[in-house]
Amino acid sequence: MIIVIKNNPDKKQMDNLVKWIKGLGLDIHMSKGDNTTIMGLIGDTSVVDEDLIRSLDIVESVKRIQEPYKNANRKFHPEDTIVNVDGHLFGGGHFQLIAGPCSVESEEQVIAVAKAVKAAGATVLRGGAFKPRTSPYAFQGLREEGLRILSVAKHEVGMPVITEIMDIKHLPLFEDVDIIQVGARNMQNFELLKELGKTRKPILLKRGMAATIEEWLMSAEYIMSEGNMDVILCERGIRTFEPYTRNTLDLSAIPVLKELTHLPILVDPSHASGLARLVLPLSLASVGAGADGLEIEVHNDPVHALCDGAQSLRPEQFEDLVRRIDVMLPVVGKERDK
Amino acid sequence: MIIVIKNNPDKKQMDNLVKWIKGLGLDIHMSKGDNTTIMGLIGDTSVVDEDLIRSLDIVESVKRIQEPYKNANRKFHPEDTIVNVDGHLFGGGHFQLIAGPCSVESEEQVIAVAKAVKAAGATVLRGGAFKPRTSPYAFQGLREEGLRILSVAKHEVGMPVITEIMDIKHLPLFEDVDIIQVGARNMQNFELLKELGKTRKPILLKRGMAATIEEWLMSAEYIMSEGNMDVILCERGIRTFEPYTRNTLDLSAIPVLKELTHLPILVDPSHASGLARLVLPLSLASVGAGADGLEIEVHNDPVHALCDGAQSLRPEQFEDLVRRIDVMLPVVGKERDK
Amino acid sequence: MIIVIKNNPDKKQMDNLVKWIKGLGLDIHMSKGDNTTIMGLIGDTSVVDEDLIRSLDIVESVKRIQEPYKNANRKFHPEDTIVNVDGHLFGGGHFQLIAGPCSVESEEQVIAVAKAVKAAGATVLRGGAFKPRTSPYAFQGLREEGLRILSVAKHEVGMPVITEIMDIKHLPLFEDVDIIQVGARNMQNFELLKELGKTRKPILLKRGMAATIEEWLMSAEYIMSEGNMDVILCERGIRTFEPYTRNTLDLSAIPVLKELTHLPILVDPSHASGLARLVLPLSLASVGAGADGLEIEVHNDPVHALCDGAQSLRPEQFEDLVRRIDVMLPVVGKERDK
Amino acid sequence: MIIVIKNNPDKKQMDNLVKWIKGLGLDIHMSKGDNTTIMGLIGDTSVVDEDLIRSLDIVESVKRIQEPYKNANRKFHPEDTIVNVDGHLFGGGHFQLIAGPCSVESEEQVIAVAKAVKAAGATVLRGGAFKPRTSPYAFQGLREEGLRILSVAKHEVGMPVITEIMDIKHLPLFEDVDIIQVGARNMQNFELLKELGKTRKPILLKRGMAATIEEWLMSAEYIMSEGNMDVILCERGIRTFEPYTRNTLDLSAIPVLKELTHLPILVDPSHASGLARLVLPLSLASVGAGADGLEIEVHNDPVHALCDGAQSLRPEQFEDLVRRIDVMLPVVGKERDK
Repeated sequence: MIIVIKNNPDKKQMDNLVKWIKGLGLDIHMSKGDNTTIMGLIGDTSVVDEDLIRSLDIVESVKRIQEPYKNANRKFHPEDTIVNVDGHLFGGGHFQLIAGPCSVESEEQVIAVAKAVKAAGATVLRGGAFKPRTSPYAFQGLREEGLRILSVAKHEVGMPVITEIMDIKHLPLFEDVDIIQVGARNMQNFELLKELGKTRKPILLKRGMAATIEEWLMSAEYIMSEGNMDVILCERGIRTFEPYTRNTLDLSAIPVLKELTHLPILVDPSHASGLARLVLPLSLASVGAGADGLEIEVHNDPVHALCDGAQSLRPEQFEDLVRRIDVMLPVVGKERDK
Repeated sequence: MIIVIKNNPDKKQMDNLVKWIKGLGLDIHMSKGDNTTIMGLIGDTSVVDEDLIRSLDIVESVKRIQEPYKNANRKFHPEDTIVNVDGHLFGGGHFQLIAGPCSVESEEQVIAVAKAVKAAGATVLRGGAFKPRTSPYAFQGLREEGLRILSVAKHEVGMPVITEIMDIKHLPLFEDVDIIQVGARNMQNFELLKELGKTRKPILLKRGMAATIEEWLMSAEYIMSEGNMDVILCERGIRTFEPYTRNTLDLSAIPVLKELTHLPILVDPSHASGLARLVLPLSLASVGAGADGLEIEVHNDPVHALCDGAQSLRPEQFEDLVRRIDVMLPVVGKERDK
Repeated sequence: MIIVIKNNPDKKQMDNLVKWIKGLGLDIHMSKGDNTTIMGLIGDTSVVDEDLIRSLDIVESVKRIQEPYKNANRKFHPEDTIVNVDGHLFGGGHFQLIAGPCSVESEEQVIAVAKAVKAAGATVLRGGAFKPRTSPYAFQGLREEGLRILSVAKHEVGMPVITEIMDIKHLPLFEDVDIIQVGARNMQNFELLKELGKTRKPILLKRGMAATIEEWLMSAEYIMSEGNMDVILCERGIRTFEPYTRNTLDLSAIPVLKELTHLPILVDPSHASGLARLVLPLSLASVGAGADGLEIEVHNDPVHALCDGAQSLRPEQFEDLVRRIDVMLPVVGKERDK
Repeated sequence: MIIVIKNNPDKKQMDNLVKWIKGLGLDIHMSKGDNTTIMGLIGDTSVVDEDLIRSLDIVESVKRIQEPYKNANRKFHPEDTIVNVDGHLFGGGHFQLIAGPCSVESEEQVIAVAKAVKAAGATVLRGGAFKPRTSPYAFQGLREEGLRILSVAKHEVGMPVITEIMDIKHLPLFEDVDIIQVGARNMQNFELLKELGKTRKPILLKRGMAATIEEWLMSAEYIMSEGNMDVILCERGIRTFEPYTRNTLDLSAIPVLKELTHLPILVDPSHASGLARLVLPLSLASVGAGADGLEIEVHNDPVHALCDGAQSLRPEQFEDLVRRIDVMLPVVGKERDK
């Protein structure tokens, strides 16, 4: 970490800063120029609060040289992490398809969709039981009953399942869930992340709507620092000024993350745009950008299921998508898991 | 709500949509032009999921006419809500100052700051016990012990206290807290909001870093829909591309909110900028914009307390700020509570 | 266009608004509900200033039903526009590669790069002569001399050329240029757009850094409204809060634009990220999203040319990219022009 | 400038970088740690292209220590610049009000507004002759005729005038204009800025909709580097995700700019929000934030002038605003010019 000190700093404040830094177990390399003094901090600076130093009167600016994340950092773990979900491998050149309905509605619905997406190539079944909704008056999901239905479908069809957790107090209900999903709105629910870090289940961590890549990795670090190394990242769009799409899918984040971290990275093209007709092009774009898999909404009954049909593909559209992905995967050096 | 239908819509989908809307208890006013059909929905549309309709194949666009929030809506409650905190009134022309240290560190520290800010004009004492930190390796606050210290200071100095909650499981620890604060990162932690709605304590709800004004009011609605009407809003900056300040304080939001809602609105200028030297000008700007009060960090020991001194004012700076605010308040038709 | 009127509007203002709208040659369909009056405007609303109406005291909100662009609108021109550049077709299922150095430096450099990229599959040569630079102290390009060099390379190698214009007074220098590029910073330089609309040269219009898709199409409309229909759009990233990449490439814009407009759409992955190592994944992502071509920086001398080597690929990297694109193109139903 | 080099850099590229930097006349202070090599550049780094170095393969990150602007930098010119407009002083504790109609429509209109705003305290008359409009079909201003009318009003009422330039070819028409305004869309029209730098007229430079503070100062630098030091900055809102206001007024920028530069800083609250009813609170907020003046739209005929009445105050609202500002100014240590 490099700290640029203002001209003619107050001596007492300067001494305090030096003493405080040394108290954190760090060494200082001081370099005085004509107009600026630069302090180089040597040692493990992940404990240092950058914002705090930046706000001191005598400090002009601060720059971190080392990334503040360790467990998630590719520098310290050059090999790809491979997360094993019931035999299906995430990361390390494997490509996975997670698919299923937006909301769990009934056993019939979930089982039908599960069979269809499995036949088309999906390896993990998704389905929302707890639904985070902007409005308290909107449908909040089937909750406990939804988890029960997912479990039935899982064993009936023979597919591991993923579903979202919204509060740590619901954790006991997730025993039969194979991947626990943390939604965008909870990406910085630190108490939740720490508790999930104490479990041994794979966690799919969605990017917060306004989270920087570094903050996202720090949230992964929260989970990993408690001992759970099976974190899968999932890009789902960030908030920008563009009103046409619900969110702007940030596909540059994929190759950037591939440099910074060893964790597997998926993309959710359904939620990012909120428009079913954008799912196909955004899925192919995600493959091109280097994603390790996709999480896609698929529903089974386009005519009657209004709610479910919103941002979802029909099974035959999903099949078509998989066929196209299969042509593309060799170009990016990946193989689809079956 | 107005739904614009695409040219030559699929008849079956159109029938489904109409049936589904009527099933929600709404009437439809259909208006067919040469190129477009427009459906006007009549009735309580707060139950209708706008995103869902927008994503239908036959729909070109959707526009809400009625706001989706009710309890928080000024249209239905034209009078200002006044929240009473131990005799101190928030809203309705009253101006309140909340002040105190960023983090609770010791009884001595908190009591000293509390006495200083009370003398200068603050009516509520703030102090962080549970601290949301981007890094798992950073200091997470004194937690339970911090709440105990706040309680001691409250009774010793005679000031109501406000502090942040990070997980609903900690609620029993907040019994002696006068205002419970929900931080920006938890603005859409809906399970937490619902539980806080069941309490009868005033809730200070900070705006999420990327939350629209409407989403913020919907989060207030989550609390109010459970019966707790004592919600105080607090603007603390939104995330933009500008790197110089940590966040961009959105002061236009103040007069906009004054139109849309009857709830009191504060501003936190300390966290928005992250720079103590911006607190004075941003506080005066907030008063000019029409805020009902400020939440400000004040620390007592500029020389030794590095951490605390970061984005905080010293007591004498806080006093100076209060003097300036007092000159301004008549201009905006407000009176400072004492 | 739909105008939602506030409750109990001032009668005089209401009359004025109605008179003004009728004066624009539009009809009004008035629909009065319990709480709201809704005015539907019938006729060509492209002349109506939406912002202006929104800001009236009696108006609650405004919603455009018809897009404000006509010439660029796919509704009125369902077939893809195909822009013919010296026999190379842009749009309509054709895929084009524009490649060349960031800045024109010398005849030798440009000719060498031109030969290399032509051999690898590029059909148009790019090269900056006028360079928009944030700093007045940075190299501003070879300007007139740069255009002369481009012209020499064009005839020597036999490739049409594209280069950026920064001020309409330079137009006479662009006679031998085949596509005139308008950079992101000039996307709303309306006087420039109008003058380019009077030429008959193809215009490549880059998206402004903070431009919405609609504003971008309105800028295309500025060119087209003067009679020049040969407009090619080029996405190059928008500004967001993410600091890791210079800009965030908005690939959702590609399929959205394919719906809204008939104009060809390219992507510039080099400028968006500012990092050569992201060009390959972002190029493949662009192909997946449905782009009609790419504009890519390629330089010839990685060791000596510091400036040029910045965000550029080396020729062998460009060749590798083209090979991968060729595998992908059938997946998106496109064919590369040769 | 500090350059952080990656682990085990390619030696040839490293030598090239060193040679290139020295070729720019800079010295290098090299500091090798275990994992990182840090190069400190000593000398005038304003000529160095930061983006370019950042994009090199061997570079991990770059940090500028010195600001890239010189003439606009408060470090080198600690005293406030005071711009003299016909005896009215901008900066240095003086507070100025610029007011007038959005668009120039007729002599009668402009003269009437001019007299009203002058009586209320405005010192400079504003009025748009060339109007930058998103749509080519919208009214583009009276152009030459508008400038003629402004000139008539200027001499009739006795007030200096400000109006916007959209293309340098119109400069000869601006001879009788006292301050030339550069609009947000032209903030990075570098050819225009350079030409304006050769004039000796004060330039009011609005912030671009997505411009960082540093880029804005670099645009001021473009003007100043050509010899014209009379630059006035004007904040007018930046683009964010919030849809309620047209733009988000960034008032934190005011105190930040006061640190970074010696140039006077105004705020335009009318354009930022696009809503007349927000002008009063945002004006008071701007005064609180430390602005040196305001540029406000005022129209004279609320009933008939639809277009003009949009985001404008009526004269009596403007008078009321001035009365309130006068109470506030002593709080921020400013005095209103009369």
